[in-house]
Amino acid sequence: MNERVERLAHELDGLAAAAFLVTDPVNALYLTGFESSNAAVLVGRETVRLLTDGRYITAARAIEGVEAIQADRDVAAFLGERLGELAEGRVAFEADHLTVAARDAIAVSGVELVPAVRVVKSLRAVKEDSELTAVRRAARILNEAFERLVRHGFEGRTEAELAWWMTAAIHEEGADAVAFDTIVAGGPNAALPHHHPGSRAIGPGETVIVDAGAKVGGYHSDCTRTFATGRLPDELQRAYATCQAAQETALAAVRAGASAPDLDAIARREIEESGIAEVLHGLGHGVGLQIHELPVLSKTSDETLAVGNVVTVEPGVYLPGLGGVRIEDLVIVKEGGTEVLTPFTKDLVEVV
Amino acid sequence: MNERVERLAHELDGLAAAAFLVTDPVNALYLTGFESSNAAVLVGRETVRLLTDGRYITAARAIEGVEAIQADRDVAAFLGERLGELAEGRVAFEADHLTVAARDAIAVSGVELVPAVRVVKSLRAVKEDSELTAVRRAARILNEAFERLVRHGFEGRTEAELAWWMTAAIHEEGADAVAFDTIVAGGPNAALPHHHPGSRAIGPGETVIVDAGAKVGGYHSDCTRTFATGRLPDELQRAYATCQAAQETALAAVRAGASAPDLDAIARREIEESGIAEVLHGLGHGVGLQIHELPVLSKTSDETLAVGNVVTVEPGVYLPGLGGVRIEDLVIVKEGGTEVLTPFTKDLVEVV
Repeated sequence: MNERVERLAHELDGLAAAAFLVTDPVNALYLTGFESSNAAVLVGRETVRLLTDGRYITAARAIEGVEAIQADRDVAAFLGERLGELAEGRVAFEADHLTVAARDAIAVSGVELVPAVRVVKSLRAVKEDSELTAVRRAARILNEAFERLVRHGFEGRTEAELAWWMTAAIHEEGADAVAFDTIVAGGPNAALPHHHPGSRAIGPGETVIVDAGAKVGGYHSDCTRTFATGRLPDELQRAYATCQAAQETALAAVRAGASAPDLDAIARREIEESGIAEVLHGLGHGVGLQIHELPVLSKTSDETLAVGNVVTVEPGVYLPGLGGVRIEDLVIVKEGGTEVLTPFTKDLVEVV
Repeated sequence: MNERVERLAHELDGLAAAAFLVTDPVNALYLTGFESSNAAVLVGRETVRLLTDGRYITAARAIEGVEAIQADRDVAAFLGERLGELAEGRVAFEADHLTVAARDAIAVSGVELVPAVRVVKSLRAVKEDSELTAVRRAARILNEAFERLVRHGFEGRTEAELAWWMTAAIHEEGADAVAFDTIVAGGPNAALPHHHPGSRAIGPGETVIVDAGAKVGGYHSDCTRTFATGRLPDELQRAYATCQAAQETALAAVRAGASAPDLDAIARREIEESGIAEVLHGLGHGVGLQIHELPVLSKTSDETLAVGNVVTVEPGVYLPGLGGVRIEDLVIVKEGGTEVLTPFTKDLVEVV
């Protein structure tokens, strides 16, 4: 058993379970190093079993320290037939991943199933040194791509063209892939936090939000900057100043022990008190093997930051019909503050 | 109500439900045209309500024929508080999408929840003409990219370099995005059906599997061809001939009314009778708004093909340690046969 699996096995007593069934493929990757779109890991006190279908079974058999079992494509139905043989006692399962139908299919086994949430995800939220190294590398690549993007220029190019250009730059800088589809949103589209880049050409005097990420060695980075194509209307200048102040104030408060909803409230208050926009989304999220993971920095979060968390700090100010601003840093949470991984300037940069 | 929503509303009587809660964002896109990573659609006999969080709410409000409701990021918790006001009677839900934890959060509302599976997915399996047009376009782009790839050449380039080259070619031919991370697997890696392209350089006398897709207008294409870098060892030549025969025999049997497991069995038998490899995966899958959707062509499927299905036909022959072959066409199911969307030759092509 590796240390990650051992940490999970230590949770079994608290769950009063004989085994923990991991069905989220990303959690399976975290625990075993096995990457696939279809895997389950059954962790007992002494055993680690890795179930996957025929597309991946050859790779699964090469994983050390696990017993690879070839299941059907429908792993839940397979477990409905076989879980009784594989587990002696109650089995905890990932209730925040397993569907109702899959749980019902597994329950056919007669094994008592115990719902558990955020168990492996909470382990993943605190990164090991090797994971931090990977995230730093993904962030460095992304920063280089942003530096190149502003030299490339915006005006007259469409959002979709710029999004592809950024995607290619992230690849050329050494990423395995982009972390997510690059967002480029200009003019009124910048008022939509998750705009899908389209055929609209970037014009003069507007804000352009670029939200991009790199993936390398399985780990992601995430950074947003908002650029101006020439002089902005007063409302957008004010939106930029408000967003920057909210981002920098919240970021200054990020440290181990800080309450996630309190951090969200700092940025939220700054934007609400400006009176120029309603707040459309939370402050940020964890980043690691997935682009969105724990901890969640939002008003409904109940989490407290810990040393080794990797989180985004990304308030946005959106003016419907006119434009928007979002500024996002990726940081490692430390004892008394942060290590910022996204050094690209947050002052307003004019790009033409 | 548009026709798709009407078709769903017609299912309510059979489910003895007053409303249907759609939580799969792709199903929400299909029903309303609203694209996001976080949406729920509540379809009653006369009403369509679209719930999403603040990142997407401005876009949701622009959708015609729906009532947009701003929920929290955690839509399930929001419904736990509000579903009682929104629905009068039992609510059917997507048990093959909703997690156990989300179902429990919604159940806090006190509303009786009725599990349903494959309801919207089954509607999606039969494509309308406009959807077929989009899939054809995505397939044409992909075909052009394959034509360019073989002129580009393989030898000495790494899998990851070729995968990126193919990705860029798909973009340049007009795709909005790739349908999935392009797979390039050479030499022994070709024995792994879902190999992740790495730093291995392609060498002489091996098979190279290229599995790629284009996405355009929301719809996907999917095609695999296997190439030879010079003369292949006898086992791989035989694997190629076996795979091609299995693919062509199964493809010839695809038509409306054909049984999915029977089609799978045709290819499976061909490969098993050759005695050279075990069968590692099913014959194919539906393609549309998602790269994997209904119908599923596998031995455990219970589906029958219908006019307007779009499916892959993709048997594989994998020789561990040596190499592998997969040949995949994308086809539209017709009354007496198919329209093949992937005209690139299936005869063995040597690329150096």
